[in-house]
Amino acid sequence: MLPDVQAASDVRGIPLDEVGIEGLRYPILISSGQGDKRETVATADMSVSLDAGVKGAHLSRFIEVLHSWREQLGSESAVGIADDLRHRMGSGRARVHLAFPYFLERLAPVTGARAFVEYNCAVTAVSERAGSSLALQVVVPVTSVCPCSKAISDRGAHNQRGRITIDAHPTENPTDLWFDELIDIAESAGSSPVYALLKRPDERHVTMAGYDKPVFVEDMVRNVAQSLRDSNHVEAYRVRAVNDESIHNHAAFAELAWTSAAGRI
Amino acid sequence: MLPDVQAASDVRGIPLDEVGIEGLRYPILISSGQGDKRETVATADMSVSLDAGVKGAHLSRFIEVLHSWREQLGSESAVGIADDLRHRMGSGRARVHLAFPYFLERLAPVTGARAFVEYNCAVTAVSERAGSSLALQVVVPVTSVCPCSKAISDRGAHNQRGRITIDAHPTENPTDLWFDELIDIAESAGSSPVYALLKRPDERHVTMAGYDKPVFVEDMVRNVAQSLRDSNHVEAYRVRAVNDESIHNHAAFAELAWTSAAGRI
Amino acid sequence: MLPDVQAASDVRGIPLDEVGIEGLRYPILISSGQGDKRETVATADMSVSLDAGVKGAHLSRFIEVLHSWREQLGSESAVGIADDLRHRMGSGRARVHLAFPYFLERLAPVTGARAFVEYNCAVTAVSERAGSSLALQVVVPVTSVCPCSKAISDRGAHNQRGRITIDAHPTENPTDLWFDELIDIAESAGSSPVYALLKRPDERHVTMAGYDKPVFVEDMVRNVAQSLRDSNHVEAYRVRAVNDESIHNHAAFAELAWTSAAGRI
Amino acid sequence: MLPDVQAASDVRGIPLDEVGIEGLRYPILISSGQGDKRETVATADMSVSLDAGVKGAHLSRFIEVLHSWREQLGSESAVGIADDLRHRMGSGRARVHLAFPYFLERLAPVTGARAFVEYNCAVTAVSERAGSSLALQVVVPVTSVCPCSKAISDRGAHNQRGRITIDAHPTENPTDLWFDELIDIAESAGSSPVYALLKRPDERHVTMAGYDKPVFVEDMVRNVAQSLRDSNHVEAYRVRAVNDESIHNHAAFAELAWTSAAGRI
Repeated sequence: MLPDVQAASDVRGIPLDEVGIEGLRYPILISSGQGDKRETVATADMSVSLDAGVKGAHLSRFIEVLHSWREQLGSESAVGIADDLRHRMGSGRARVHLAFPYFLERLAPVTGARAFVEYNCAVTAVSERAGSSLALQVVVPVTSVCPCSKAISDRGAHNQRGRITIDAHPTENPTDLWFDELIDIAESAGSSPVYALLKRPDERHVTMAGYDKPVFVEDMVRNVAQSLRDSNHVEAYRVRAVNDESIHNHAAFAELAWTSAAGRI
Repeated sequence: MLPDVQAASDVRGIPLDEVGIEGLRYPILISSGQGDKRETVATADMSVSLDAGVKGAHLSRFIEVLHSWREQLGSESAVGIADDLRHRMGSGRARVHLAFPYFLERLAPVTGARAFVEYNCAVTAVSERAGSSLALQVVVPVTSVCPCSKAISDRGAHNQRGRITIDAHPTENPTDLWFDELIDIAESAGSSPVYALLKRPDERHVTMAGYDKPVFVEDMVRNVAQSLRDSNHVEAYRVRAVNDESIHNHAAFAELAWTSAAGRI
Repeated sequence: MLPDVQAASDVRGIPLDEVGIEGLRYPILISSGQGDKRETVATADMSVSLDAGVKGAHLSRFIEVLHSWREQLGSESAVGIADDLRHRMGSGRARVHLAFPYFLERLAPVTGARAFVEYNCAVTAVSERAGSSLALQVVVPVTSVCPCSKAISDRGAHNQRGRITIDAHPTENPTDLWFDELIDIAESAGSSPVYALLKRPDERHVTMAGYDKPVFVEDMVRNVAQSLRDSNHVEAYRVRAVNDESIHNHAAFAELAWTSAAGRI
Repeated sequence: MLPDVQAASDVRGIPLDEVGIEGLRYPILISSGQGDKRETVATADMSVSLDAGVKGAHLSRFIEVLHSWREQLGSESAVGIADDLRHRMGSGRARVHLAFPYFLERLAPVTGARAFVEYNCAVTAVSERAGSSLALQVVVPVTSVCPCSKAISDRGAHNQRGRITIDAHPTENPTDLWFDELIDIAESAGSSPVYALLKRPDERHVTMAGYDKPVFVEDMVRNVAQSLRDSNHVEAYRVRAVNDESIHNHAAFAELAWTSAAGRI
């Protein structure tokens, strides 16, 4: 019988907020808002709280739990995994974070040419005795044209790729909120969405549409905030817009966190 | 006269938590706990809060403020920079974060051979009307030998490079706390410090010393927690230990946040 | 009719080796050596050579070519994509590079517990008028125990996660060589493979097996070299072993390139 | 007396191209083309070739060599370090690669406001019995405005941050070539340089100057190629331009390598 070192007692009297694994890469299935299930690759972080009197957590069980869900692993099952992990480990709190690339087929705005656009998404599920919670994250690339550069110049305006990150806590019925809604909100907040495939008529359209709708990072955050407050699917959020400025070698950013009276983040 | 677009009014009624720049690389001077001043390279993030009625922040002023401090730029001056930035921008809150490599000359444990070890450090200064605060961060590489692997095996024990991250809010007199103290606390919490230069007698020493002091990530966090509670220089902290497991392709981690009755993090 | 700027003539008289796109993320299907087809996510780089007299390449066609192969996109089709791209662009040379995570279900060595291990793999296909070529790359995590540390110490030995990268040009019949063979060769060259899931009897086994087979980075490269020369599937290769040293904050590495009389790399 | 495992003989008969260390972070001094010496932080890779009959290289000597040069460590001394390393290790070939951020104080184009711009630079020195060689690398951020987007649109044009990488082998007298010359060549090849600090009159200037000089990645590479061929300081080079396209989520790139009749790369 091999000794069980983790199960030994600890006399320092210090409970730990989190013990777990991070950076585990694993294949998962994800439902797209376009109706199909798609396999993608997640980076998984999983943890449990640890009581003061116990020396360590049995981390191999994390992989066993994750693997046991492998036929239905995904953002929908994240709360189930967290609940399972908490019970299996006998802990007060378990946390599962799955980050993965999520693809949507997009049509070019004039020619309708089709290609996939990647959005970096994540789900975080927390299981506690008192209940469980879920949060969604999307990172959405956009184009932004600078309002100041346009206003002060006789011609042209600097623009660049930006990205909008939304962390959202759904209201009571979490299945009402999906990545696609958050992605659409973010894409609408910039000067223009970005595309994988644009033919010349599309490039003309995107260039002029962006020039006609210049936005600062401040504007993008406020645009997202307005959309999220109009949605009744979100009770708390954090939004951050970052521009990889084309005239600088650093980025500009703006950020806002908001919680409804009943919410938390 | 060029139009001032940022100064325009905004009618959406949404104040922003932060507007600023991120990822600006800049040369800075940093005092080492070994007595000298050393030039290093910072990655700077700077932000201010923005009132609901204003369209944007004038980000070029961030660089002007930073550059005006260039002869004395460093962790000691971070609060001054944040105060300066808040006044210059007319904002309620300003935040300055400088992350940089910090080098200490270390002696090999047996031969005394000298070489530099890099520690990733950072300072965060926040300036508000009610006062200012400072936080220090160190990321310290360590060796850790697995207690379980040692206990269940007839010979050997898996070990790996780990890193301990400490975020610390100093007590009232911030100059009492310096990176060196936090680095020493982290290095003492692992199985052994890591070194840039070890000759064979040193490698023998480090191998056996580590084997004789196996620690889990849980132990490393608890060891740091004990040391920080014994220090009267810290009123709040967060500590995280991560092991790049040598027998896995993922990492193990543990984390703990703590705040004194009077503290905040 | 929109002007076609790329098709304009260029008078500088400078042909370009490569013009293309990089960092495009796209879903692809990949055959595993374990028999099934699996969807994964590729990072695609694609390029063509450009004649001196032409101003630019029509990069949107790269995405069209890639998307047109989407039902059969993968390493087997890489040469077909490169040929297609070269013809479509009217270029002398086309290059397609697809890098992606590749998962194999692995059994723990004693308990047989199952979990997926990730290997970073890539294919590079080059299409020229004279013919086409294919190269495979695998990046394989391993454990390595230091022979010096073991020899000079009374107990223990430092060990760490390493990774072995093999770039291999198959002999005439490229379908004889697959990632699985290269992964097996790399895993055999270290002190032990790494696993996603190890129970205590497995951890005991891996600890002692590694301790009984210490290797330097030099040994790992030479072990791979011996295996590849024994294989008649490879006519040229480059192998690099890197150890994230557990007693240092830097890595150790060794590298070797080899080409058969008839080969090229 | 501790055993010397590295010095043992190896019977596999496989010489290695390179054995060494990578990713060592070290403070270095660098001469700027603006006249002063400046401390910065290098990431060092160092290697030697290894004969077939020897089991391993003594890697601790790499750090000793590096540290012994610490008062004069920099790109000028890179060949000296490589020579020293080769002799110390008794090897046929030694290679030293130092990569570091290099800062130049730049003036905004209209207001003359001053701030530092970072350029990622590197030196590679190779020492062989037959002689030594040196190569310089610069990575230079630029703005690029798309000629196609401008030509096909009634207003505006998409633009983005790009970066131009030049690897250059100096002609006989290496001290004739310095980073500043290569940086100037790269900055002249884009639509506009980027700046850390631009006031509104500067932003107006940069916006319109860029709009008036649109360039593809193909143009940037050809512009650099023309400048380098006019310089008599370079006998071989590789140049690569990459645009982080503002309307896409991937990058566009072009690349060219060139060697004079007498040169090599």
